[in-house]
Amino acid sequence: MRTLGALIFPGFELLDVFGPMEMFGIASEEYELVLVAEQVGPVVSSAKLRVCADFSIAERNDFDILFVPGGAGVRREVDNPVLLEWIKTVSDQAEFVLSVCTGSALLARAGVLDGVQATSNKAAFEWVTSCGPDVDWRARARWVEDGRFLTSSGVSAGMDMALAAIARMHGVARAHQVAKWAEYEWHQDPTWDPFAKMYDLA
Amino acid sequence: MRTLGALIFPGFELLDVFGPMEMFGIASEEYELVLVAEQVGPVVSSAKLRVCADFSIAERNDFDILFVPGGAGVRREVDNPVLLEWIKTVSDQAEFVLSVCTGSALLARAGVLDGVQATSNKAAFEWVTSCGPDVDWRARARWVEDGRFLTSSGVSAGMDMALAAIARMHGVARAHQVAKWAEYEWHQDPTWDPFAKMYDLA
Repeated sequence: MRTLGALIFPGFELLDVFGPMEMFGIASEEYELVLVAEQVGPVVSSAKLRVCADFSIAERNDFDILFVPGGAGVRREVDNPVLLEWIKTVSDQAEFVLSVCTGSALLARAGVLDGVQATSNKAAFEWVTSCGPDVDWRARARWVEDGRFLTSSGVSAGMDMALAAIARMHGVARAHQVAKWAEYEWHQDPTWDPFAKMYDLA
Repeated sequence: MRTLGALIFPGFELLDVFGPMEMFGIASEEYELVLVAEQVGPVVSSAKLRVCADFSIAERNDFDILFVPGGAGVRREVDNPVLLEWIKTVSDQAEFVLSVCTGSALLARAGVLDGVQATSNKAAFEWVTSCGPDVDWRARARWVEDGRFLTSSGVSAGMDMALAAIARMHGVARAHQVAKWAEYEWHQDPTWDPFAKMYDLA
């Protein structure tokens, strides 16, 4: 059983977090999910709905998997040195580091993606890439895997990446089992990305 | 602007709620989202993660849109007369009534689906249909629209239904705009349902 620490912050994007958490949550024998924020308690999401952080970043930094979502709040948190330091610490010791959407801007600003292939969402691609000049950014990708780093495109792409992560850890049959239970059509090809073209990025 | 009341209860399925809430949340000028539960405060989801209810069912029953998710907790709540009465009250006065996954079992037990075409998730289809002998159940469907009732298949199907609901209220171009922003490949055809066959239901 691996522990997965999902970082949340005011203005995190709902589906960035709960799409992947649904997939990992179905595989409940393999993953223990924890929500972490600067403070314990309610955290307001992009859509104003509130979610409860289980632990503060001061209380926990020991996760097998670090998960970082995007959302409007990222624009503020890229200038939060306490949060960036926590991301660096957890990332350095984690077996896997995952991000969805503009979450990769936080990883980049924490300095853990230098020289690493990564992607981000399409609508904010220019801004995200400016947060990490030494990252090997890839515009056209549903998600990118580079060693222990898995970064996905915008919002919905996190679900496809989560299934790829499950496949890597527990085999592709387990990922298909999870997708079937969720009645989710998994885009299994990481190069599938019709959205890059819609945003004039490919 | 329409108000949407999403019912949550212990053991609700994460993506059943937050997939559709992401879509409605992107269309933030058109929808105000509220989470409602028997008690205000933290409610534990299927994957153990906790979400905060904004209002108790005693405080609010005035929504333009009623939204009912599924999840393991439904098996308990179908025998909760207080919750079923609230569903009946809200449903009777709502402009639209939406459910995802086994959420349609709650609508059926509240007595609001009699004679209505509806669907539910595939893995629990036999049990759900037993909750509503007078409902016109459809096994092979991504979602079903019958008048003001929109019911979807399991988990991920709620996102496709939510986009269909947005299309109905604000036009198909608005739904495509939301899907593009979420980088979501909308299954726009309600009869698209490869999962029915996987579960020997078609």
